[in-house]
Amino acid sequence: MALGEFELIERYFTRPTARAVLGIGDDCALLAIAPGQQLATSTDLLVEGRHFLSTVAPERLGHKALAVNLSDLAACGARPLGFTLALALPAVDEAFLDGFSRGLFALAEAHGCELVGGDTTRGPLAIGITVYGEVPAGAALLRSGARPGDTVWVSGRLGDARLALEGFRGHVSLGEDFESLRVAMEEPQPRVALGLALRGVASAAIDVSDGLLGDLGHVLRRSGVGARIDADAVPRSARLAARPLAWQRVCTLAGGDDYELVFTAPPAAEDAVRRAGAAAGTAVTPIGRIEAEAGLRVVDARGEPLAEDWPSFDHFKS
Amino acid sequence: MALGEFELIERYFTRPTARAVLGIGDDCALLAIAPGQQLATSTDLLVEGRHFLSTVAPERLGHKALAVNLSDLAACGARPLGFTLALALPAVDEAFLDGFSRGLFALAEAHGCELVGGDTTRGPLAIGITVYGEVPAGAALLRSGARPGDTVWVSGRLGDARLALEGFRGHVSLGEDFESLRVAMEEPQPRVALGLALRGVASAAIDVSDGLLGDLGHVLRRSGVGARIDADAVPRSARLAARPLAWQRVCTLAGGDDYELVFTAPPAAEDAVRRAGAAAGTAVTPIGRIEAEAGLRVVDARGEPLAEDWPSFDHFKS
Repeated sequence: MALGEFELIERYFTRPTARAVLGIGDDCALLAIAPGQQLATSTDLLVEGRHFLSTVAPERLGHKALAVNLSDLAACGARPLGFTLALALPAVDEAFLDGFSRGLFALAEAHGCELVGGDTTRGPLAIGITVYGEVPAGAALLRSGARPGDTVWVSGRLGDARLALEGFRGHVSLGEDFESLRVAMEEPQPRVALGLALRGVASAAIDVSDGLLGDLGHVLRRSGVGARIDADAVPRSARLAARPLAWQRVCTLAGGDDYELVFTAPPAAEDAVRRAGAAAGTAVTPIGRIEAEAGLRVVDARGEPLAEDWPSFDHFKS
Repeated sequence: MALGEFELIERYFTRPTARAVLGIGDDCALLAIAPGQQLATSTDLLVEGRHFLSTVAPERLGHKALAVNLSDLAACGARPLGFTLALALPAVDEAFLDGFSRGLFALAEAHGCELVGGDTTRGPLAIGITVYGEVPAGAALLRSGARPGDTVWVSGRLGDARLALEGFRGHVSLGEDFESLRVAMEEPQPRVALGLALRGVASAAIDVSDGLLGDLGHVLRRSGVGARIDADAVPRSARLAARPLAWQRVCTLAGGDDYELVFTAPPAAEDAVRRAGAAAGTAVTPIGRIEAEAGLRVVDARGEPLAEDWPSFDHFKS
């Protein structure tokens, strides 16, 4: 292939920037942060076999690579500004690049998030994205703000992505549900609008990337509290609800790759939470309560404790 | 190994942050950008075999991974604030992590650049770093500011890193010079202080990562100008000067991995450039002149044109 690094960047990844002071093509990108705003930033590195399968369509991979980063901004209540893309590719594959860039830019444009810089190299397929957002000073949703008595809420529905993964792994037969379930795994929708609407309403938030209980555990530790969660209250799709209960619990409680928000708010804020969900067009469901006692107590709808150990998905261990 | 992602981050990569509003441990890092300052940011992805060899000591690799990013801030005249680290590792190797983190933090602390966030995963070794810096609005050194008549300057000495690489490749025997030359390749010193001192003095700047002529070519294209460069004026070490002239020219003009700055300034700014170099403790050497005619004319000390084609190092082509 005669297409070198610079032509590659030029062809697939150069778009005019509207808000960045200086975009791709210099040593650094320059971003102006408005007075009173702080920069919120997060970085994720996606590796084949760990974060996506080789069977994923390039367009969906482009979507997902940015989506998982936007989900971090959403969990902070930050408004997306821009992102950088670092891409290692085994070869210059124009069909891949065409699809990947289309999926990437479609999601970026939907969220007003500009590509401001990047780096490409040859190597085993890896996608590193850093996102930049802004949030008024002091307004960011943190993991550390949950207080005893707060209600625990979750957005959307959990578990479909994990069910799809188990289908790919051959552990379950998904039949005609397979194509729609794989969309949940391959094209997660970051809850950016909900995160913005929850500023001043939620006391703490995190996005569900490694499984509900594992990620909620980060909130509990940072906040110095515990929680009681009703496993049967965790919202799930009709497709997942048709599966055996044990499958439903693994997928909803320890699924991973959901990219929904789990957040806390005082009981008095219930109406405000519901208004935020309605404004963002995202379902919000109460699933439990923050308690002073440390630890996570998972019960069923009758209040009976569930004894299972629910490990968090760990991109390094498994 | 029982060490999971979270313990790994905790053990090797958690340091208290002094300037970041919020560091590692939440969905996003939060950075306050001072009034009147813009955010300068750059990202680089380093892959084994492309950007470093498997023989590199982990401590030096940690240094280099951050150095190449700080070099981008230097080329913009930005002051380092912080960085995020995305790390894909084939396995949890504590000896590697210990050395890598020591080299990384030693350089970070020398430049007041805090680790504010990160992501680790299992995968083929890859290191993605995004750096954040600040620069007063309008003061950044850009590639687009070179004007006919400007002098072309370069910092430090060029070519040792390429000579070391050729030694590793077995193309040249370096004898007792090998160990000191490999330091040039493995532990480049980003010219952050020089970049800061050149604000308001240089008309354009870029860092030399892919070879002098190739990187200078980016400045010429973005500025809409050409240049005449005296190949024999390009500064080089005594070790490199002892090699055949053809080797010297390849290494100094198209070497790559130098991480020096090449920059332009009006002739009237010569004293100011020399004061900036002295203030930063970095040698600065005039090597040519910007001309209105597009293209790059390379001549020897007698003014005779050199006919060789000097390709830029391209991390994707070779």
